[in-house]
Amino acid sequence: MAFKGGDLLSEKAAGDGHGESSSYFDGWKAYDMNPFDLRHNRGGVIQMGLAENQLTLDLVEEWSKNHPEASIGTAEGVSQFKRIANFQDYHGLPEFREAMAQFMGQVRGRKATFDSDRVVMSGGATGAQETLAFCLANPGEAFLVPTPYYPAFDRDCCWRSGIKLLPIECHSFNDFRLTEEALVSAYDAARRQGIRVKGILITNPSNPLGTITDRGTLAMLATFATEHRIHLVCDEIYAGSVFAKPEYVSIAEVIERDVPGCNRDLIHIVYSLSKDFGLPGFRVGIIYSYNDAVVACARRMSSFGLVSSQTQYFLARMLSDEEFIGHFLKESTRRLAARHERFTSGLREVGIGCLRGNAGLFTWMDLRGMLREKTPEAELELWRVIIHKVKLNVSPGTSFHCREPGWFRVCHANMDDETMEVALDRIRGFVRQHQRRAKAERWAAKGQLRLSLPRHGAAAAASPYLALSSPMSLLSPQSPMVHAAS
Amino acid sequence: MAFKGGDLLSEKAAGDGHGESSSYFDGWKAYDMNPFDLRHNRGGVIQMGLAENQLTLDLVEEWSKNHPEASIGTAEGVSQFKRIANFQDYHGLPEFREAMAQFMGQVRGRKATFDSDRVVMSGGATGAQETLAFCLANPGEAFLVPTPYYPAFDRDCCWRSGIKLLPIECHSFNDFRLTEEALVSAYDAARRQGIRVKGILITNPSNPLGTITDRGTLAMLATFATEHRIHLVCDEIYAGSVFAKPEYVSIAEVIERDVPGCNRDLIHIVYSLSKDFGLPGFRVGIIYSYNDAVVACARRMSSFGLVSSQTQYFLARMLSDEEFIGHFLKESTRRLAARHERFTSGLREVGIGCLRGNAGLFTWMDLRGMLREKTPEAELELWRVIIHKVKLNVSPGTSFHCREPGWFRVCHANMDDETMEVALDRIRGFVRQHQRRAKAERWAAKGQLRLSLPRHGAAAAASPYLALSSPMSLLSPQSPMVHAAS
Repeated sequence: MAFKGGDLLSEKAAGDGHGESSSYFDGWKAYDMNPFDLRHNRGGVIQMGLAENQLTLDLVEEWSKNHPEASIGTAEGVSQFKRIANFQDYHGLPEFREAMAQFMGQVRGRKATFDSDRVVMSGGATGAQETLAFCLANPGEAFLVPTPYYPAFDRDCCWRSGIKLLPIECHSFNDFRLTEEALVSAYDAARRQGIRVKGILITNPSNPLGTITDRGTLAMLATFATEHRIHLVCDEIYAGSVFAKPEYVSIAEVIERDVPGCNRDLIHIVYSLSKDFGLPGFRVGIIYSYNDAVVACARRMSSFGLVSSQTQYFLARMLSDEEFIGHFLKESTRRLAARHERFTSGLREVGIGCLRGNAGLFTWMDLRGMLREKTPEAELELWRVIIHKVKLNVSPGTSFHCREPGWFRVCHANMDDETMEVALDRIRGFVRQHQRRAKAERWAAKGQLRLSLPRHGAAAAASPYLALSSPMSLLSPQSPMVHAAS
Repeated sequence: MAFKGGDLLSEKAAGDGHGESSSYFDGWKAYDMNPFDLRHNRGGVIQMGLAENQLTLDLVEEWSKNHPEASIGTAEGVSQFKRIANFQDYHGLPEFREAMAQFMGQVRGRKATFDSDRVVMSGGATGAQETLAFCLANPGEAFLVPTPYYPAFDRDCCWRSGIKLLPIECHSFNDFRLTEEALVSAYDAARRQGIRVKGILITNPSNPLGTITDRGTLAMLATFATEHRIHLVCDEIYAGSVFAKPEYVSIAEVIERDVPGCNRDLIHIVYSLSKDFGLPGFRVGIIYSYNDAVVACARRMSSFGLVSSQTQYFLARMLSDEEFIGHFLKESTRRLAARHERFTSGLREVGIGCLRGNAGLFTWMDLRGMLREKTPEAELELWRVIIHKVKLNVSPGTSFHCREPGWFRVCHANMDDETMEVALDRIRGFVRQHQRRAKAERWAAKGQLRLSLPRHGAAAAASPYLALSSPMSLLSPQSPMVHAAS
């Protein structure tokens, strides 16, 4: 039943602004068609493209079981059923906003305080980003975003609002840190094109890098925003997922302590319980704005994506249990650190490096040394092999608008230890095989001989991937790949 | 902390598209400042501006208490906690979509069937309407809407999407029925203005009229949509709140049975659990489209307003309990009918009529006879007296874009019997006082005498409202108000 006459739908409906027609969804399709299962499908694709936290859900489940009064459906909670079922005030339950404000402070080590009257609900961080885009910019106006950045920002911020995202180019030579020079360069470039810049959007901790933004950079951003009268939107949805030093610094803390002249009307924070708490199903997004007009407008827009009152009620009780939250955050940090260490050290065994990260549910893996050449096409070629042969759905750097080919985001917190070990084994096996081939090819080239390599199936035989070089760290200085991969 | 430099926000944020700056919110403000409470504030304002169903929540509460396995926070349901908390697929839980599809059929007397693959979630009907606007029309394009219509459609459909709503004028002489003549007239007028009409949006049952659209009119609309290749959006959020004959007819039934040539790609239904079930806090909006491309696009957009998985899980169990649902719908019908009968017959005692309705949570009350003159200004003048003196927050017809002054929507299902009786007493007292005054004034006018009427306070003394006439049904043929109120 194809729809004839596409002009009957809107341009948004007919267009690709949602991003799901992109080739980057190939990995998801491969996973969906053949999902790995420890017991029932050990040959399937392992999902490493999903930044989901399954490491601490047992703690939340346990709390929930011990607190039946937090569920309005239980004998202990049912006295609140009518009030809660009927509650539709877009300000949210006062106890929910208060619990959220105190929780946001606790997650940030009490180094900043949050006012419950500035807590605005939205349908996940997805809805929060869109709401801020609608509040802050007109169609055609732009936010600057350091690269690499979360691919779905294009959908969240731009699709329906019509605003633009313009990249601030960051590079591996300084660990993708955002510099003032790069910011100014992006800002000036936009102005030269006649595009009005309305804000800067960062993720801190960074998705996909797994790093945090240091205090000095945050102060620079707040100062730049103040001087140029543009907004600064800080997406802090991984604030509670920082598992190692250096300590996390929130923009909330920086504007209180470090930038006394900051125009707070320009500062907005996005938060969520999907990542730090592992509750994406509950659809809890938060806009925390220091600007009264934005709070008022975002609250009105929150009618399009309020949090279920049943869920607000439950979370109000859980988040205000400070002792539990303290325990949860400590345990979560410990488990995330252990997972990260196990995964990255496992990669190091075969010479694969990652950007040094201390936050998030993923690792920014460096496969530059395995590229056939230093191009986005070669990155995608390698990626397809990883999906279809190695059967891991990882995400290529180009999907994060990374200009430097060869980086991949690998999520490792959405699975149990055993699955993670299978994934690690697959990567190591793949890399070792690649290294053997590369070595053989180097020998062959040296001796002007053409060696016949063992091939696995017709598809592999047809793939130009077999010409791939070894990882950078194992390359000899003579390798033609050194330059291509630097 | 006022925000200086409004141009830093978007035009949407700076503008009034949300509608909340309108004077119509005066009634809500009056209620918020002094809410009636049976025990603690019997002099407060009674909320009759809220179409909320509190008559059957006890049944839902009871079911909930008897089914602890439907809550993931209970000992009986906790085994599902992790799966549900992590569930974020925008298709929704399969069991939720299936239960919703079967429930939608049951509500409509099994005269139409619904396919769970066409059930798309959104953040309440609010989010559903916006999503359809984004899917079906570009900024500047229009939907035609019969008047009077739900005021928040301007926010839901237009604010962020930029589409327009153009009225199809309906009139009291035929009980505000939508005629083909009025539709054609509105359609032609739009085209003359160079506005592209992309669809027709109706509420069936009607909010605010409390009436249903008959089969013939629905068939006319589906035929018109097919012939002119424009969409037909049917908001059926009160489909389960029809409490008297004639029987409800859904567009789903009409396109299956009555309009064989209908282009189903143009037909879309909005549903919700906020009204029929009295669960507005749960934020369950549904788009049911017969158009594959709209289903796909709306589903992608549903990322901005998914239903909490905790709530999906609970409702999947409740809605699939067909025996309970059967009992619920029967009992709900009985209670709504009783409430409607009690309220409208109470009004009749003092000669106040209502449009004959058989659905919804409100009554379309005719106070045309009480207007000083037949103008919107006089309607608002009367309305302010009702809010501030009678202390009832009812909604004036002009806020529903009704062109004929003197109609008011009065909600009566969001309160208990006792509160409703207080509200009824207040209206009757007000009308009787008005009648006495009008009578005295008529006598005074006859005898060329100026009577000194008792006045209540300075505000009342200054109000031109004291010159108001009596309700229409009590007017003598000589009254100068007869014409004004016809």
